[in-house]
Amino acid sequence: MTISIQSPLKHLHHLLYTEMNQVDTLILESLYSQVGVIEDVGKYLVQGGGKRIRPLLTLACSRFFNPDPGCAIHLAAAVELIHTATLLHDDVVDASTMRRGQQTANEVWGNSSSVLVGDFLFSRAFQLMVQTKNFDVLDSLSNAAAKIAEGEVLQLTSSYSLDLSIETYLNIITSKTAALFAAACEVGGMIVGMDMSLRHHLYQFGHNLGMVFQIVDDFLDYCSNSGDLGKSQGDDFFEGKVTLPVIIACQDRINSDFWISQFAKAVRVEADLQTAIQLLESHCILYKCREIARSYAEGALNHLDKLPKSAIWHDLKDLISYSLNRKS
Amino acid sequence: MTISIQSPLKHLHHLLYTEMNQVDTLILESLYSQVGVIEDVGKYLVQGGGKRIRPLLTLACSRFFNPDPGCAIHLAAAVELIHTATLLHDDVVDASTMRRGQQTANEVWGNSSSVLVGDFLFSRAFQLMVQTKNFDVLDSLSNAAAKIAEGEVLQLTSSYSLDLSIETYLNIITSKTAALFAAACEVGGMIVGMDMSLRHHLYQFGHNLGMVFQIVDDFLDYCSNSGDLGKSQGDDFFEGKVTLPVIIACQDRINSDFWISQFAKAVRVEADLQTAIQLLESHCILYKCREIARSYAEGALNHLDKLPKSAIWHDLKDLISYSLNRKS
Repeated sequence: MTISIQSPLKHLHHLLYTEMNQVDTLILESLYSQVGVIEDVGKYLVQGGGKRIRPLLTLACSRFFNPDPGCAIHLAAAVELIHTATLLHDDVVDASTMRRGQQTANEVWGNSSSVLVGDFLFSRAFQLMVQTKNFDVLDSLSNAAAKIAEGEVLQLTSSYSLDLSIETYLNIITSKTAALFAAACEVGGMIVGMDMSLRHHLYQFGHNLGMVFQIVDDFLDYCSNSGDLGKSQGDDFFEGKVTLPVIIACQDRINSDFWISQFAKAVRVEADLQTAIQLLESHCILYKCREIARSYAEGALNHLDKLPKSAIWHDLKDLISYSLNRKS
Repeated sequence: MTISIQSPLKHLHHLLYTEMNQVDTLILESLYSQVGVIEDVGKYLVQGGGKRIRPLLTLACSRFFNPDPGCAIHLAAAVELIHTATLLHDDVVDASTMRRGQQTANEVWGNSSSVLVGDFLFSRAFQLMVQTKNFDVLDSLSNAAAKIAEGEVLQLTSSYSLDLSIETYLNIITSKTAALFAAACEVGGMIVGMDMSLRHHLYQFGHNLGMVFQIVDDFLDYCSNSGDLGKSQGDDFFEGKVTLPVIIACQDRINSDFWISQFAKAVRVEADLQTAIQLLESHCILYKCREIARSYAEGALNHLDKLPKSAIWHDLKDLISYSLNRKS
């Protein structure tokens, strides 16, 4: 299975190598179906790479108190399946054609298969969660799943308008991204019997880390020097999706006419994107975005500070910096 | 809330009036969201009618042993939410425009909203199930959800071909319809502590009843005297979906050329449907379909016979006949 590994993700993957292999095996077993296309789509997605940060977080957070991962393997697999199901449905909703450098499943198998296989993966995730026989865990992950769907609907109904406020943008990414990061961390602690106050810090650590991840993802879309982001540069711009850089530019009245005319158009081309990037860079908008991400990184660190300073602690601390400063 | 009530469904609705009102209240509470369109779509569907047979089954089956519905209310609501989520995604996949005499949600709000609101309802169903704190129930319903998705994918990949065998057709409807009927019945018994052997009969009763329901649904699509089916007559035919009547006609080599030419066409019109109906009726194909449905009705009765003859028993027995002989 190919994984794009970067330090400190690389170090976490190395540290949790055995457990991550068990997670991969469990995911592949979960994809088993007598209906061939389900396995085809599932394997295409799972083997298509990705950072696998969510299952890593679940495993890492279970390690704070217990070297034996036990049911954390099931939870890590469930978390990744929920994430994968969400990506399948996202790509249908956004009519995306490329993800992580390959065609999206909807492009290969069509929207209908993507919708239904997404439902299947989602159900499989619940089956895995149920096997842990831990109600707190089920509560946390089913709440996260509902929140993700809410965030996706909010994004659909409000993020194609330049009127989108920073507050609504933050609400959207809290739900669509940070909720699963938070739950992935929290359930890692829950499954090894961590006490309530520490669980709270795990949850908040995950939430803040998820916010950093999404904000950085959104501004890398406009970075002239972004590397292999896994998605193409300019995706949001071409889709007409308003994200933090554009919101700040509009709020600061930086070339308002440009943004209004661009987002009023049915189609934006590469030259439009390059102009957008120049405008955002010359007015330090991406710097401002990173400052907002930095405040969440500080939040993540504050909560991490409340957790025991085990070996894994330092990896998670490094992960915060990596998430903030990554170029891809 | 408007419900199309027919005897003995009417009698069950009357008998379980208080509980069904609690189920409706719980469903409406579950639709609450800060994202307006979620509530709009949810209420549109839930208040759009339907027989509500699945939650009725859950409540009825919990009544065998316990007059206090307790958590059965939560389960009945969860079962209806899973069903509603499935309908939302089905209508996207089938590009349906009408259901139960009104525009489908995808026709009103678009495919993207339908996909995402479906995910939300599905998550809400799991939240309700988790509240029952019963692992057997969670296991049963999460298995049913996975099976439904598998059935839908199998239908998508195989039911647009005249090569579809009766066996595959029965596999499809076992998964896409009967699995939720079976689980709806089984969890009703589970939640009141019914013992394992009786649960098995509840499950098999539900499975067989679900098979009857779907087979009858499929042949009513071709019935000249079908009433208000809630879906338009000829839906499957116009969509090019091969169901039992067409499979039997092809198998019996009844006007094979007609079926081959019809299902090779991109579009079928009303006159084609009328010819199809005449062919099926004149060769007693619908009678043969009903005979297959009847064998499942007998299966349902055999399993019902193993259950205690409480007052509700007679209603469920009547429900089998009603399901077999209904005209709409």
